[in-house]
Amino acid sequence: MKLVAGIDLGGTNTRVALVDEQGSITHQLQVPTHQYPVPNDLVQTISKWLRTGSLPPHAQLVGVGIGAPNGNYFTGTIDFAPNLKWPGSVPLAQMFADQLGVPVVLTNDAKAAALGEMHWGAAKHLKDFIFITLGTGLGCAIVANGQLIYGHDGLAGELGHITIFDNSDRVCGCGRKGCLETYASATGLVTTYRKALAAQAKDLQSEAAFDAAYIYQKALQGDAIAKQAFRFTASVLGRGLAIAATLTSPEKIFLYGGLTRAGSLLLGETAQSFEENLLPVYRNKIQIRCSSLPEDHAGVLGAAALIRQHIQNQSV
Amino acid sequence: MKLVAGIDLGGTNTRVALVDEQGSITHQLQVPTHQYPVPNDLVQTISKWLRTGSLPPHAQLVGVGIGAPNGNYFTGTIDFAPNLKWPGSVPLAQMFADQLGVPVVLTNDAKAAALGEMHWGAAKHLKDFIFITLGTGLGCAIVANGQLIYGHDGLAGELGHITIFDNSDRVCGCGRKGCLETYASATGLVTTYRKALAAQAKDLQSEAAFDAAYIYQKALQGDAIAKQAFRFTASVLGRGLAIAATLTSPEKIFLYGGLTRAGSLLLGETAQSFEENLLPVYRNKIQIRCSSLPEDHAGVLGAAALIRQHIQNQSV
Repeated sequence: MKLVAGIDLGGTNTRVALVDEQGSITHQLQVPTHQYPVPNDLVQTISKWLRTGSLPPHAQLVGVGIGAPNGNYFTGTIDFAPNLKWPGSVPLAQMFADQLGVPVVLTNDAKAAALGEMHWGAAKHLKDFIFITLGTGLGCAIVANGQLIYGHDGLAGELGHITIFDNSDRVCGCGRKGCLETYASATGLVTTYRKALAAQAKDLQSEAAFDAAYIYQKALQGDAIAKQAFRFTASVLGRGLAIAATLTSPEKIFLYGGLTRAGSLLLGETAQSFEENLLPVYRNKIQIRCSSLPEDHAGVLGAAALIRQHIQNQSV
Repeated sequence: MKLVAGIDLGGTNTRVALVDEQGSITHQLQVPTHQYPVPNDLVQTISKWLRTGSLPPHAQLVGVGIGAPNGNYFTGTIDFAPNLKWPGSVPLAQMFADQLGVPVVLTNDAKAAALGEMHWGAAKHLKDFIFITLGTGLGCAIVANGQLIYGHDGLAGELGHITIFDNSDRVCGCGRKGCLETYASATGLVTTYRKALAAQAKDLQSEAAFDAAYIYQKALQGDAIAKQAFRFTASVLGRGLAIAATLTSPEKIFLYGGLTRAGSLLLGETAQSFEENLLPVYRNKIQIRCSSLPEDHAGVLGAAALIRQHIQNQSV
């Protein structure tokens, strides 16, 4: 049995899965990323697990795929990832290849998850779709003509960093102002809610620890400010998605990540704003859906799809 | 000798060229489009020319490519083109195929010109680039992974119709407000200049007939309002190009069409605004250039490239 390993490297946890040719996960490992301030220690831990103990009898590890924030497919490096606390550029693909002696391919987390949707999810028969991850930031992967768009430097798909409002006061992690992800992300939702509370002179101290999940609970309880924060977040998201759709005319757009747990609270307003902001000729043709992949598994399955595809291309 | 015909269908004129395998034009025809209120009459005129008189001895017409406003590659139709005065959907590819008995392929004018740049121009070795036409409107074709992006319905690349300003009062031909092409096009330049004159309470009557070429002449003569109108047009264009580049990360962006005759008056400010609006990681990596194809020939050469590519794909 030929297995691949899919690694989903996140700021908090790193998940590793051994995946067979049908996309079934045979074994899993989870390690806390932040306990590895030196990337090589994480590589050693995972490699050791992959070499010993995890492989069933008669099984062979034939490759490793990695999805990581700021991962670059062309160079196999993670470059200046603000959520990882590893400084500079980390040649992670090469580090794993040196340890394991099998092909290793790396890409960014949104692109990996899109590949997962394409190989083992609801995008199986789609040639043109967009995959959006809504977490701390907004990640995006664009598939056109059945292929991921990497661009000339591997960095295509940064929809989160288009300027969505003139004269915005929201400073983005990239150093500019008014980027889409300062509105349409878990962080953006929290900012919107916080601003709305402040505008009503509410006591922020008492709600100091809130996050997107808290705002969702408040909204479910009928809190007007929380509901309005969701509506505004969704309307800005819809506007951003309309821009992406105008450029690449996808058949579907998939949303993925923590914020999508809000379900219709997010989706309904997003779809409405999306349609309003579209060129008439595109209207009522493009579906916005939640990803069909389980939230815990999309990353590892996508990374596994990435290396499967690589091995297949090499053998042609 | 196997020749293809490239047809560049425009609102004012339609150009037809017979093109050999090296991209050389052997014969040309130009007819005034607006003198053909019924599309079939234009098809008859061009088909007659292609059948008789135009082909050299021992030459064979093996296919026809067409670039046209609102042309749809997937359906071979021109759909509701505001500049053509032909109502509804016109099945132009089928009409030519019926007349000539050879394969006919049609696409929109910007996509055809991009193919011309890719086959016979400065994009020959590029896998990722964007091609922009600046005329009455703003046309756009995106090439990624060496292929044109059509999207699921053939309508990808409508960069001219992304909303570029909040609360804009500029009404677009598509029925919405604030679209990029209401600013970054010959029409947009004229609007900007006209608004600036009005703001200074200048007499609009005396300058009633101005167009983009007139404003360019005024700018060359040092007219401050004309120069400022160009700067503003270019800065909005740069902002729009930055959005497109953020999504597809091209190696180069080519500008084409009447407005590019303004040369550095347009290019300099466009490039500066482009860089300012880019995510830092993309800066100083993406070149903005004028198309290398002669303005009169890009359309027919692009249409010829389209049919050559089609014939090649069929024979694989």
